[in-house]
Amino acid sequence: MAKTTNDEQFKNVISHAKEYGFVFQSSEIYDGLSAVYDYGQLGAELKNNIKTYWWKAMVQMHENIVGIDSAIFMHPKIWKASGHVDGFNDPMIDNKDSKKRYRADQLLEDRIEKYRKDGKTDKAEDLQTAMDDALKAEDLPQLKSLIEAHDIACPVSGTKNWTDVRQFNLMFSTQFGAMSEDAEVVYLRPETAQGIFVNFLNVQKSGRMKIPFGIAQIGKAFRNEVIARQFIMRMREFEQMEMQFFVRPGEDGKWFEYWKEARLKWHQALGTDPARYRFHDHVKLAHYANAATDIEFEFPFGFKEVEGIHSRTDFDLGQHQEFSGKKMQYFDSELNEEGKPYGNYVPYVIETSIGLDRMFLLTLINAFEEQDLSTEDKQDSRTVLRLHPALAPVKAAILPLTKKDGLPEKARAIMDTLKFDHNLIYEEKDSIGKRYRRQDAIGTPFCITIDHQSLEDDSVTIRHRDSMEQERVAIADLERIIGNKVSWKNLLSKA
Amino acid sequence: MAKTTNDEQFKNVISHAKEYGFVFQSSEIYDGLSAVYDYGQLGAELKNNIKTYWWKAMVQMHENIVGIDSAIFMHPKIWKASGHVDGFNDPMIDNKDSKKRYRADQLLEDRIEKYRKDGKTDKAEDLQTAMDDALKAEDLPQLKSLIEAHDIACPVSGTKNWTDVRQFNLMFSTQFGAMSEDAEVVYLRPETAQGIFVNFLNVQKSGRMKIPFGIAQIGKAFRNEVIARQFIMRMREFEQMEMQFFVRPGEDGKWFEYWKEARLKWHQALGTDPARYRFHDHVKLAHYANAATDIEFEFPFGFKEVEGIHSRTDFDLGQHQEFSGKKMQYFDSELNEEGKPYGNYVPYVIETSIGLDRMFLLTLINAFEEQDLSTEDKQDSRTVLRLHPALAPVKAAILPLTKKDGLPEKARAIMDTLKFDHNLIYEEKDSIGKRYRRQDAIGTPFCITIDHQSLEDDSVTIRHRDSMEQERVAIADLERIIGNKVSWKNLLSKA
Repeated sequence: MAKTTNDEQFKNVISHAKEYGFVFQSSEIYDGLSAVYDYGQLGAELKNNIKTYWWKAMVQMHENIVGIDSAIFMHPKIWKASGHVDGFNDPMIDNKDSKKRYRADQLLEDRIEKYRKDGKTDKAEDLQTAMDDALKAEDLPQLKSLIEAHDIACPVSGTKNWTDVRQFNLMFSTQFGAMSEDAEVVYLRPETAQGIFVNFLNVQKSGRMKIPFGIAQIGKAFRNEVIARQFIMRMREFEQMEMQFFVRPGEDGKWFEYWKEARLKWHQALGTDPARYRFHDHVKLAHYANAATDIEFEFPFGFKEVEGIHSRTDFDLGQHQEFSGKKMQYFDSELNEEGKPYGNYVPYVIETSIGLDRMFLLTLINAFEEQDLSTEDKQDSRTVLRLHPALAPVKAAILPLTKKDGLPEKARAIMDTLKFDHNLIYEEKDSIGKRYRRQDAIGTPFCITIDHQSLEDDSVTIRHRDSMEQERVAIADLERIIGNKVSWKNLLSKA
Repeated sequence: MAKTTNDEQFKNVISHAKEYGFVFQSSEIYDGLSAVYDYGQLGAELKNNIKTYWWKAMVQMHENIVGIDSAIFMHPKIWKASGHVDGFNDPMIDNKDSKKRYRADQLLEDRIEKYRKDGKTDKAEDLQTAMDDALKAEDLPQLKSLIEAHDIACPVSGTKNWTDVRQFNLMFSTQFGAMSEDAEVVYLRPETAQGIFVNFLNVQKSGRMKIPFGIAQIGKAFRNEVIARQFIMRMREFEQMEMQFFVRPGEDGKWFEYWKEARLKWHQALGTDPARYRFHDHVKLAHYANAATDIEFEFPFGFKEVEGIHSRTDFDLGQHQEFSGKKMQYFDSELNEEGKPYGNYVPYVIETSIGLDRMFLLTLINAFEEQDLSTEDKQDSRTVLRLHPALAPVKAAILPLTKKDGLPEKARAIMDTLKFDHNLIYEEKDSIGKRYRRQDAIGTPFCITIDHQSLEDDSVTIRHRDSMEQERVAIADLERIIGNKVSWKNLLSKA
């Protein structure tokens, strides 16, 4: 089998995801909706399992972390306070001939990439610095000057007939209430974090939480991305798993390091090759942060951010204190006990923020293998998803060897003992080899085959997905064997 | 203790929900956002458990039902095909003096209610018929005439100075893409069902599904309700759990009856008093339905719909076939085998659609009790949430009797054996009685108390929430005892 390139492998993963019901293009029968995807019958299960792993690791396993579920709709002032109304923009430029719109920084980055490929390293670095400075200063005319100075043409029209660079806000907005004068502009949240900040006092008081403590949340967020790319990497509608950890001022550095390590451990508990993960510490920091790092994974298209860990200081709570007029403070009785000078303060925050869809893609890419099984005599191969058993959409396939002789009945009796605890598939059609391959392709860790011997001695074969090995076990032991292998404890004890 | 009225009880549930972190008003520090709520640290857990119960009962327990997770954003043509762009309206009327806006049918219904209360049954029925006719014919001038003829005044201004009645579409819309000429109007889905219909072929083919089969989904939906009321009963952002079951034409009646029974059983497996549930069969049917019923629950404010079961015929798939130009048909090889005349058809659909937030409210109301514990000598009471153990946000509280003598260490060792499987709370402050009551109030089924005897013989007391009885058990048995009581199997085997 020829070695596939990264590009080919990524394409294969995408088509596999569609073929087996993991991810479909949204509204496909209407020719699709740009940068929006639906999760199919196996994708929904895998996504739910990733959510469960995160929620259990963060909330269930931490006494001092609780989870909430705040609404997508929030008061519009919140996005004033957070800075999103004024600052959540992309710099856009239009080509007057093709009428196509581009992100100005994206055009420049493509050019930098080209310089690098052509060996013009100095030029690449100069442009990078100039662009970074312009972005930081929000100097739009300078961005346009760079585009012109570097002779960048529209890929469609081929001309350099550009408009000015303008800011484009990435939040979706809608109208609340009836169509009358009292209708109010409301945004779809561009991040879940603010839902946590504005509930800080509610949760702290009703849950009697003591600092340090965290609030976790999984939920949808929305960004009107102009250029969406790379499948489910950058979507207009996506899902985040965020946790805000509230700490004493001055202890933020310690907790930032703690969460860096803890989050990497969560990823690596899945057994992924550690070489495919790396930290990317931010040198330039956002206005609200005093430290930040990305956890990057090596996708087929390079190392990309999957998760961010940010030390956000007291910026967010401080802003909400100012904009809402409510004190967003914590009374730290233990500080007083320690004889320290102050009791009330606005807590500092360490945030861990992971893109659920990116984590899904990572998981799929990491699990996907087109395995060469050829021997000297025969060419052979299989597609196998080596998903961690706890994440696999289907835990076991129940396969009577034939459709007769009472084997289906025996198989269904086994199913009835396992179905309360596990998501199962029952299949009696096609040869057993074909059925094994189909389960390999969807990542089912165990195939349980019921044959004539099963009728005699109440035993079955378990065929293991990864090794393809088979073992004979007593039916009475199935619940324990499968239960142990797919248990969350295997992951949680390492995370 | 004085018997509370239904109104008082409902108010008590709402304030309990806030006090203990089940439900908060959204954006509360900004004085709230109308008809939007956030789920707090216990609410999020309870809501997740209700979702899990539904998903397991529908997807895991049915071989022929799979679950998907489609996006909130969908192609705008879908809402043309479904009828929502043209028909998903409320008739609105404004009072010119108060500038307040009302639903015309709501004003009329309030008047009908008043007639009934005043014993004017004939008048009530005449108006009901006239209003129903006008609504059915979408005769807006007639609705206004009825408001005028029955002398209905604005509750705020007291005047009858009304505008015309106008239709107001309930869908939220937003703009996709940049602010330019190519921006596209996209709606936030008003129901999750269409995400299932447009994926019918994708799921059927990639999952090799054979009719009859179902596709289930849990997700957010949005409606620009003008008058939202009754806490989380009617919100602008809410969550649905829907299942579309695809069947042969002609077998829809049989499956409609099947799902009516099956869904009621799901509700009643929770142990709710059967007298608080009833079916409400629709006499007037929506244009897409040939049969429909509501499962109603007796809320403190009367019997209200929690779930709908609808026989939707081939309306939805037929519409998408017409609007998308793609054949939404199923090739039924088994029909051919049976020698019947046709193989390809547009399947008929039975839908089960439950409001997750309503189910949450039902669960809370049904569990909430202010229990009189007074004896002859002493007045006493407690607030207890009698939640089904499988749904309870916290499964067990781990309570060392005192903070010293090694009891906390012993307690934590127990916690370490149970925490992988269960959501736990550890508490060492306050008297044990106070701690029990706090757990009662949040519905924790088991309090595990570690005392000095525990150090000697490795036993603890389990205190049961509902009976308030205590039993002494071996620490080694805890995992099994709690595991059995909170197991999903208890519910799923009855549902």
